[in-house]
Amino acid sequence: MISSQYTRDLWVADSDSKILMLVIDGLGGLPHPDFGGESELERARLPNLDRLASGGSCGLISPLGPGFTPGSGPAHLALFGYDPWKDVIGRGALSALGLGLDFKAGDVAARLNFCSVDADFNVTDRRAGRIPTPECQRLCQLLGAIDIPGVEVRIAPEMEYRAGVVFRGDGLADAVTDSDPQVTGVPPLALEARTPEAARMVEVAEEFLRQVRALLAAEQPANMVLIRGFGRYPELAPMQEVYGLRPLAVAGYPMYRGVARTVGMDAAETGWNLASECQALQKHWDEYDFFYVHVKKTDSAGEDGDFAKKVELLEEVDQYLPQLEALGPDVLIVTGDHSTPARMQGHSWHPVPLAIASEWAMADGVPAFSERGCRQGSLGVIPSTALMALGLAHARRLAKFGA
Amino acid sequence: MISSQYTRDLWVADSDSKILMLVIDGLGGLPHPDFGGESELERARLPNLDRLASGGSCGLISPLGPGFTPGSGPAHLALFGYDPWKDVIGRGALSALGLGLDFKAGDVAARLNFCSVDADFNVTDRRAGRIPTPECQRLCQLLGAIDIPGVEVRIAPEMEYRAGVVFRGDGLADAVTDSDPQVTGVPPLALEARTPEAARMVEVAEEFLRQVRALLAAEQPANMVLIRGFGRYPELAPMQEVYGLRPLAVAGYPMYRGVARTVGMDAAETGWNLASECQALQKHWDEYDFFYVHVKKTDSAGEDGDFAKKVELLEEVDQYLPQLEALGPDVLIVTGDHSTPARMQGHSWHPVPLAIASEWAMADGVPAFSERGCRQGSLGVIPSTALMALGLAHARRLAKFGA
Repeated sequence: MISSQYTRDLWVADSDSKILMLVIDGLGGLPHPDFGGESELERARLPNLDRLASGGSCGLISPLGPGFTPGSGPAHLALFGYDPWKDVIGRGALSALGLGLDFKAGDVAARLNFCSVDADFNVTDRRAGRIPTPECQRLCQLLGAIDIPGVEVRIAPEMEYRAGVVFRGDGLADAVTDSDPQVTGVPPLALEARTPEAARMVEVAEEFLRQVRALLAAEQPANMVLIRGFGRYPELAPMQEVYGLRPLAVAGYPMYRGVARTVGMDAAETGWNLASECQALQKHWDEYDFFYVHVKKTDSAGEDGDFAKKVELLEEVDQYLPQLEALGPDVLIVTGDHSTPARMQGHSWHPVPLAIASEWAMADGVPAFSERGCRQGSLGVIPSTALMALGLAHARRLAKFGA
Repeated sequence: MISSQYTRDLWVADSDSKILMLVIDGLGGLPHPDFGGESELERARLPNLDRLASGGSCGLISPLGPGFTPGSGPAHLALFGYDPWKDVIGRGALSALGLGLDFKAGDVAARLNFCSVDADFNVTDRRAGRIPTPECQRLCQLLGAIDIPGVEVRIAPEMEYRAGVVFRGDGLADAVTDSDPQVTGVPPLALEARTPEAARMVEVAEEFLRQVRALLAAEQPANMVLIRGFGRYPELAPMQEVYGLRPLAVAGYPMYRGVARTVGMDAAETGWNLASECQALQKHWDEYDFFYVHVKKTDSAGEDGDFAKKVELLEEVDQYLPQLEALGPDVLIVTGDHSTPARMQGHSWHPVPLAIASEWAMADGVPAFSERGCRQGSLGVIPSTALMALGLAHARRLAKFGA
């Protein structure tokens, strides 16, 4: 946690200023030869974002430092000022958060793959022929019969052969190896505790796997599960303590609400689009002083390699900007969690455009809200983890350090 | 200490090159709507500084990182290459340095508030009715009678009800709580040692307070003191060791001379203006090879919110630049310790313009010596702690690292 190391003792208690952080998922892109050598942001018509950038302090933020491509978990933790290299959210925990499972401090989550085993219990297909999602849902309901004394078990289907599980009970730890052998023709691996504290979790998970085997014995092709990515609920210092903020997440997708909850945010009821998110913001505007608003679809378009779609979605975000400004935040931050260039069809390491609008912004006069525009700004290229302190500063919520 | 970590083993012993670092206090500003949307630096006519910037290597420096606003102590330590988050100068120590008290390694300083107590020793006014400064001076003289075996005590009046004290003796440590209860109607708090090593300091300070109470018993309204902000003399590696420099501070204000002494600088006799500082520089030019020259008034104008005055003072600094250049420094650095935008009437977190002139500068050709001009330079936005290594490099005082 970078910011918190210094912000804890400096935050101003009696401020009522408000910060709105708009996170456009996968915001950054790359120049595309099929589109005149322009990036998605350069191609898009963004009159509102360009105006905001020109009048604000601009720069580029890097989630993990030069060269490292983040997943959504680390990228978001960095935006919220937590050290993404240290405050790691395990894969199982991220799945549970993404599925919106009931998951809280002390719980351990893991990922499940439905698989096929033969009569000798050797794995014949690690994905059970990629069963369709409805079949996965049916099997997860079957597993609802699992009963382990002293332990609550929650299971939710994901896509195709994937599912997530959360264990709740005393003395559970997450230092447990995977059962997935990564190859076929051998049985699932026995679980092992990597630390003495994880012995109870191994016992519980073994009992879980025994009952799964029994419940699925008559199923085809998915007659077993592989379990992997054990991860406890991340116990992070809440933003209230670290920054003195009352934070609200306005995010349509469960995983982002989940990540936000791990740092102490409340999560508003909202749909998966900006219209719905703007309504939720308006509804709760008076109750909070930090608002994280998440736009998902830009990232999906980048992942799909759909340059034109990403351009269109960026233009849609631009059209909503006046609604956000009309709320009157003291500080309006527009940025992304990471880059997802359509040309790369995936997340990338490239630093992400950032614009901060406030009464105390430098008015950098950058030519456009884009990768090449924002790098001309006064903030330079900074770690994403530095953003929260900047937001607090512009909100006049940080006291001077030292005399 | 950032620079020293690497410079210690690399400095060139036989160099006779000279570095002059002109620190214009509170240099950075913000665009002001009443002045055509220009910042103080943009508004000012600065032909000499603009020429220097255009022919030099330019950038912006950040004292504490994005978002954090420094006091004068941390901001100056960063300029000298010391880590301002770690090498903290306590408030009492900074006061003692500011008052020009005899204060050296092993000593502990603290701040005193003259206050009023009633017959039951409850504090009735924590500021003794804000007694005028001459009254404070008289009371400090009275306290000159304090006599503690084995301990030297030095007291100096500050403004109104404030004063500073330095204790010198064996075994003194600064981990001592304040006696200021922060409220009235209760007696001063008993002092407590936060570490076992501070037990002796608590004894000494309690004896000090007993004698103060006796000496002030007949006074009104200031019949007691509250003591707070215990801070030892900061023990930092001297610049001679870290950089191989013979450094001289030319600073009219006592506090800046004091901070410079903590890193091993000598301090020249000088008045509070650039004319006097230029004379002192000329006088000592042959005796030293690093010169820290401090201009105070720009910061004061910023703190007063006086945009026009700050502009005028910047123009005055500009007029002195040829005198500094005429001395023939191998490296001339012009920058500030932090920003003090007139619009904010206080220090701020915004990074500070920097220009380095030397034979080896890049000649960035930036349009002006200003916030928006310097950010176009080749140095980018860098930590203030990186400046010393750049100065040494331009002076050819740093050897190659590695073969």
